[in-house]
Amino acid sequence: MALRFAEKAAEAYDFPLTIGHLLDTALVTAADQEIVYRDQVRMTYRTFRTRLGRLASALSGLGAAEGMVIAVMDWDSHRYLECYFAVPMMGAVLQTVNVRLPPAQVAETIVRAEAEILLVHRDFLPLYEAIAPLLTRVGRVVVLMDGDAAPPPAGVAGEYEALLEQSAPDFVFRDFDENAIATTFFTSGTTGSPKQVCFTHRQIVLHALAANGPFGTTRARGFGIDDVYMPLTPMFHVHAWGVPYIATMLGVKQVYPGRYEPATLLRLRAAEKVTYSHCVPTILQMVFDAADKSGADLSGWLITIGGSALTQALCREGRRRGMEVVTGYGMSETAPMVSLARPRPDGDGSEDSLVRAFTATGVPVPLVSVRVVDEAMRDVPADGATRGELVIRSPWLTPCYVGNAQASDALWRGGWLHTQDVATIDSQGTLQIRDRLKDVIKTGGEWLCSVTLEDLVSSLDGVQAIAVVGVPHPQWGERPIGVVVPQAGRSVTVETINTHLETAIASGELSRYGKLERIELVEDLPKTSVGKIDKKLLRARYAGLFEPAPQAGPQPATQPATQPALQPGQEIGAS
Amino acid sequence: MALRFAEKAAEAYDFPLTIGHLLDTALVTAADQEIVYRDQVRMTYRTFRTRLGRLASALSGLGAAEGMVIAVMDWDSHRYLECYFAVPMMGAVLQTVNVRLPPAQVAETIVRAEAEILLVHRDFLPLYEAIAPLLTRVGRVVVLMDGDAAPPPAGVAGEYEALLEQSAPDFVFRDFDENAIATTFFTSGTTGSPKQVCFTHRQIVLHALAANGPFGTTRARGFGIDDVYMPLTPMFHVHAWGVPYIATMLGVKQVYPGRYEPATLLRLRAAEKVTYSHCVPTILQMVFDAADKSGADLSGWLITIGGSALTQALCREGRRRGMEVVTGYGMSETAPMVSLARPRPDGDGSEDSLVRAFTATGVPVPLVSVRVVDEAMRDVPADGATRGELVIRSPWLTPCYVGNAQASDALWRGGWLHTQDVATIDSQGTLQIRDRLKDVIKTGGEWLCSVTLEDLVSSLDGVQAIAVVGVPHPQWGERPIGVVVPQAGRSVTVETINTHLETAIASGELSRYGKLERIELVEDLPKTSVGKIDKKLLRARYAGLFEPAPQAGPQPATQPATQPALQPGQEIGAS
Repeated sequence: MALRFAEKAAEAYDFPLTIGHLLDTALVTAADQEIVYRDQVRMTYRTFRTRLGRLASALSGLGAAEGMVIAVMDWDSHRYLECYFAVPMMGAVLQTVNVRLPPAQVAETIVRAEAEILLVHRDFLPLYEAIAPLLTRVGRVVVLMDGDAAPPPAGVAGEYEALLEQSAPDFVFRDFDENAIATTFFTSGTTGSPKQVCFTHRQIVLHALAANGPFGTTRARGFGIDDVYMPLTPMFHVHAWGVPYIATMLGVKQVYPGRYEPATLLRLRAAEKVTYSHCVPTILQMVFDAADKSGADLSGWLITIGGSALTQALCREGRRRGMEVVTGYGMSETAPMVSLARPRPDGDGSEDSLVRAFTATGVPVPLVSVRVVDEAMRDVPADGATRGELVIRSPWLTPCYVGNAQASDALWRGGWLHTQDVATIDSQGTLQIRDRLKDVIKTGGEWLCSVTLEDLVSSLDGVQAIAVVGVPHPQWGERPIGVVVPQAGRSVTVETINTHLETAIASGELSRYGKLERIELVEDLPKTSVGKIDKKLLRARYAGLFEPAPQAGPQPATQPATQPALQPGQEIGAS
Repeated sequence: MALRFAEKAAEAYDFPLTIGHLLDTALVTAADQEIVYRDQVRMTYRTFRTRLGRLASALSGLGAAEGMVIAVMDWDSHRYLECYFAVPMMGAVLQTVNVRLPPAQVAETIVRAEAEILLVHRDFLPLYEAIAPLLTRVGRVVVLMDGDAAPPPAGVAGEYEALLEQSAPDFVFRDFDENAIATTFFTSGTTGSPKQVCFTHRQIVLHALAANGPFGTTRARGFGIDDVYMPLTPMFHVHAWGVPYIATMLGVKQVYPGRYEPATLLRLRAAEKVTYSHCVPTILQMVFDAADKSGADLSGWLITIGGSALTQALCREGRRRGMEVVTGYGMSETAPMVSLARPRPDGDGSEDSLVRAFTATGVPVPLVSVRVVDEAMRDVPADGATRGELVIRSPWLTPCYVGNAQASDALWRGGWLHTQDVATIDSQGTLQIRDRLKDVIKTGGEWLCSVTLEDLVSSLDGVQAIAVVGVPHPQWGERPIGVVVPQAGRSVTVETINTHLETAIASGELSRYGKLERIELVEDLPKTSVGKIDKKLLRARYAGLFEPAPQAGPQPATQPATQPALQPGQEIGAS
């Protein structure tokens, strides 16, 4: 029996957790605070709020209504931020379109989301025009331009700024149910076709409250009034990790860099005194390279790294430059914040200890309940070594894959969201992602971590890049193969690699089943739209390698006389 | 039309904002973190969680059930913290009894809350025994003792530790509706008999998320892993400002000091390395005095001050000792956090600028929507000078005064919670409370701030203490009188005071109606249970002073020839 208020005052305000309320404090405390777009726009939060009204009026004039999906294709801009707020605040649903997908998939996502209004930056008009015939449901198109005088192309409903100018700022945003859907977008993972996730107002507000760096490094306890925020993760990617919502809630100065051009990023960082950003490792490396060319000072910049693992080398490189570089972990399905790295309470404060701590996957943020479990959903020991799948509960996880009940049920099997990530957890709650569940190689009753193998081999002379994948094998279930890009003019053989691996096997770092079955030499490794190695494609390419006529059985270095039986639940962490 | 998920996965977990979930992260990341009670108990969060199970089992054995009210009378202790969690987590309602009220009122609050189980510290047994005959609904009494060997008195159900020892730790806490009531207690303000407020699980969780120092001073951005928390506000008082819930959520080390004894507080502060506390100004002064005696070092201690205004002198005194002393503002009705002081973005960083900033009422925390309004609910100008009533909306405000529909409706008139505080707000959202609405003196069509008058007069030679209240007046609505405690052996007259006030009137700091109509000399000012001057009593005592036969009309220094007409809504801020 749930207790409810029996005698609430008639006029007591039932405060819903809607995105509009994220503005309440900021408009009172930070009305004169700035929002900056490159060197083109500089406006106050007060103006921002006026423009939200105008944007909602303009969209309303184009037929937007509650529940309608409105899609955006833009660089990181103040306009995108306006859509982050105005579209959900009017009860419509914001679709953040991943413009890096192949054109056919971009079209697919817009069609499947049932978007009816599309806002497109001029730079993406060629893409739009290529797929326009497929977008039969999109009735209105608004073009976003960066101050160029050229008129918008024929056939569009108008240009963003002109529409805002013509529209009244006094749109009435009303309260509604916090469980209304606010945003939707598609996962761009390495597996399968894009899956559609969605998030409610309540979820985005709770994420903003809980993910404001509650822990962590000295500086990472959340935004202060002197912080300046610039996203370096595309705004189509999981709400730019939700940080624009957090920064706006707190009235922090925000800088939107448009298309990521290294020189512009560094110029904005210096001119606007940016203190906080977040990005994938590739972008951080790009920033380092640009800073080396220009001699830019990067000190005092705190950057959260996600998307791929932050290596110790990259972390050290940032710290050498006076930055703080810290791992965050999350997924499209998780809105995205799950965990943040922080110094260990038992750390010795040394540089090595901090680097190890900041490159770990981190500890869960408040209201994220984590477990690392075996296949029977039993918790594995919290010893920092035993592997299992990371499953989570939190108030801000996608409740489904839209239109895909089967995938939804798999995602939420047993009442926990399955991350498909293989992780360890230690007694201090520090998570370490070891591999994708799909990339784990199940061989001889043990689980091999493909990332571990790649790490061990990637430093070998002659190896420029390597991906390790499991390939079906009639005798061993799967066997690992290495897809290798050799260094120019160098040769590399499976024997060389396996000899190298023997040390790791002898030390217990690698399973005795960990030798590669064979290698394939390639010129390039295939990548997904977000730049990760496309292991799904590799698995498909080499799926028949050992079947129907296997070349050879594996020759584990120390194969046990009696093969251990496969016992579900004991498999994980056995390696 | 509110959108809801049409196709949520069957097993998707609908994460409720219940108090139990505040433990999720802490138990994973901080299982070995400590909770300390004086020099008597030192336990880990892991043990704390086990004890929650035992406590729930024990209470269940005493007949506790969902919806039942369980009352606690204790000093600030680990046991109280256990009740903060276990009682609501089992679906019961925690009543935090204000043990400082007069015995009859303590009884009244327990009776009106309909508490059925009572947990009483041995120190409060005499109080309990005095009121026991009135508590006809209380079926079971549990005694809390501090390790003394004496057996619990006859007639009680048992002693806390013995009950826990006998009870199983594996009580099954289940999920339930986040809108279930979690806590209830009674306001102890200066006006009227105690009013009963209540808060739901959802409200306490949202408060914990939003009030974790999102802003502020360098150190006040919320708890970090190296922080140590010790409350110095009684736990019966608005959930000790909600901080025990925040600290637990974040796995911070906690120190509970029991009864506030200055020497013990300073010893605990030093031994346990306490970094954060909160208290009323009186306690801070007590800490200073004790430190002066013992030579204790207070540096590095951040203290939030609420309950009464933090004076600049007290703030400077703290800063001189290397502390950070910062104003927080809230009420019993607001769970309590409404605003926190912070440095002004436009401040010059000087000591004076910081002290001014930290002694202001502060800026609203996220999800607190504030307005300062006139009597017609129109916003007054945000100029830092125009006075109005502070009204708020937030997800964590009491929805009613239980059992008092009339007061509930007044509290929530117009859909905003009326704080009854007269405030100003400036362009940066800085609130400054000027007076209680009931203490404002309405005279000659203007509002006089009683606190302003008190501040002006309190520094006068001969005045040891003064309270200014408005007394009904046939001609002027009300007139201010001063209730004065003269300095020993000194005399003070209304003429001396009014002469002194003329400077303030001439400078515009005080309204021309601001002279005192008369003064009353007393030996002591009456206080409420929380140590504030009982102006309600004073108003009642002197209510007939000018009626039915008024002594004299007011003689404002510069009374206008034409009296301005009373215009509702224009009155506020006219002074």
